[in-house]
Amino acid sequence: MEPLRVVEWDGDGDGPAVVLLDQRALPGAVEYLRASTVAELGEAVRELAVRGAPCLGLAGVYGVALAAHRHGSVHGTDLDTVRRESEWLARVRPTAVPLRLGVERALRHLADGPAAVLAEAHAAAAQGAQANAAATSRAADLVEELVGHRPIRTLTVCNTGDLATGPGGTAFGAIRRLHERGVLAETLACETRPLLQGARLTIWELERAGIGHRLCVDSAGPAAIANGLVDAVLVGADRIAANGDVANKIGTYMLACAAQRSGVPFLVVAPEETIDPDTATGADIPIEERAAAEVTALAGVPTTVPGTPVYNPAFDVTPFELVTAVVTETRAWCSAVRT
Amino acid sequence: MEPLRVVEWDGDGDGPAVVLLDQRALPGAVEYLRASTVAELGEAVRELAVRGAPCLGLAGVYGVALAAHRHGSVHGTDLDTVRRESEWLARVRPTAVPLRLGVERALRHLADGPAAVLAEAHAAAAQGAQANAAATSRAADLVEELVGHRPIRTLTVCNTGDLATGPGGTAFGAIRRLHERGVLAETLACETRPLLQGARLTIWELERAGIGHRLCVDSAGPAAIANGLVDAVLVGADRIAANGDVANKIGTYMLACAAQRSGVPFLVVAPEETIDPDTATGADIPIEERAAAEVTALAGVPTTVPGTPVYNPAFDVTPFELVTAVVTETRAWCSAVRT
Repeated sequence: MEPLRVVEWDGDGDGPAVVLLDQRALPGAVEYLRASTVAELGEAVRELAVRGAPCLGLAGVYGVALAAHRHGSVHGTDLDTVRRESEWLARVRPTAVPLRLGVERALRHLADGPAAVLAEAHAAAAQGAQANAAATSRAADLVEELVGHRPIRTLTVCNTGDLATGPGGTAFGAIRRLHERGVLAETLACETRPLLQGARLTIWELERAGIGHRLCVDSAGPAAIANGLVDAVLVGADRIAANGDVANKIGTYMLACAAQRSGVPFLVVAPEETIDPDTATGADIPIEERAAAEVTALAGVPTTVPGTPVYNPAFDVTPFELVTAVVTETRAWCSAVRT
Repeated sequence: MEPLRVVEWDGDGDGPAVVLLDQRALPGAVEYLRASTVAELGEAVRELAVRGAPCLGLAGVYGVALAAHRHGSVHGTDLDTVRRESEWLARVRPTAVPLRLGVERALRHLADGPAAVLAEAHAAAAQGAQANAAATSRAADLVEELVGHRPIRTLTVCNTGDLATGPGGTAFGAIRRLHERGVLAETLACETRPLLQGARLTIWELERAGIGHRLCVDSAGPAAIANGLVDAVLVGADRIAANGDVANKIGTYMLACAAQRSGVPFLVVAPEETIDPDTATGADIPIEERAAAEVTALAGVPTTVPGTPVYNPAFDVTPFELVTAVVTETRAWCSAVRT
């Protein structure tokens, strides 16, 4: 199976560019999008052509590399312009801290020239893949230990595969490891309204990997847990506060509530950098509200009365007391409160 | 505002018929469907042209009246055929006990002839409207008492207005009463995947009644509760077990979990007949699984990889311990356990 090229540098074409797999076209088509300016890249980020916290981090570092290459010359780099464009890029998706961290990481090498920035971006990509490998292995071990029987049935929401998190995936990657170990019965995937990342992307990746699966509407996830159809819930994270509260795709909180009530393990799988020491608790995480049109239509088909006002938070916050463990590349951080 | 004709008898046309407002065409168009055989009526019930437990009850009684009129003559009624067709109708939606109760109620008058069956159906319709008036008034009183401040923000799921429950509505009717009393700030309506009864029907009825509202995806409902945007959750019920466990539209359970965690009142508004003394607990309620196509496409637009297997339960069960009160036309049945 050929690996996906989700966020990559292209220095070979008509000037430097960041190449993105356009996830809006999936599962119907595999289309690549070539961003040769930071404005194009930021627009792709805003419109969710690329998404998922770790891939947004890569978009951040490669975005600064792109700016540095475009505004560099034999006379040196126009540092003010690079910084201005990078700052703009960092603010395109306010909830996802890795986007900003990626930008900041790359900016620290700006004084050493465009090549140094690009080398840092490549290093970030390689480290991301290593981190995913370590976190997914640890998470799969923990699921096997917590569940204590085989085969295991998992449930997930949104998309946390290679598409969102780079090679290896996070929560999806842990599920794939369980499958590769021969201990997975099936995974339920919540469709993840409004943008259907579960139905469009996770199902596509599950099918591609040959993992047994079923799709359900989001509200059927908590019911599946209550009905005894789920042995473990695995999700990703967009930001984790210093106290362990988890901001993730809308719908994560309800799964955590249901998992706790049924005594089902609830694991958050994410790179360590998702944990933000400057965010004390979940209450300090800004929740992005997105456009009404995401809710009032689906694939261009109106679903309600025209002009209906909408409440459309992109994320919710799951308190750490509902989380069995946050699993990263370096540790399994277990909540002492979760029973 | 003209009342909706949701399920009505038509004896004036080319032979007897049951006239239904075809809810599949809403909110785009108000179209009526004329069922002149029990087979046509059953098909309309199965395909959700008419839906909601109390309206299914009316479909049951009027369906038997239709059979009795069609298979009656000056020589008497073909009782076996009427019974066979009625039994078939009662089984079209297995989870909704009022459909069966409506059929059984009407059958008890079969020996007295078609006119007696029809009179019983009209009596059932009138009693339904009275029950809704009493239950919604009691529920609105209880919400005001439990919330203790104004204005009040409510949240609901699926459709429990006149469309689903006959004149007056149930949970929706209680929200409308709060609006008429001038104490309602707004109601949030969950879109209710897979069939979007919230987005299509509840929003249409809210707009028609001039009630302030916002639409959200289902998974945003629990988050709205956790974020302090909701003072009370009001839902209907398809069946209530003798111990108070509530079967209702998929998504009800997650709202109850979230409401309990946040200390928000969670009220079930339903006619007393929804409570089935022969069903001991929620575990005894059969949960209808519906077609995969409801989940894998929306309005004909595919949402996922073709052929994806699906988990599509139509209902979930909310344990009584998560319910603040079941409010009917005769009482507010309060859970002693819910804190």
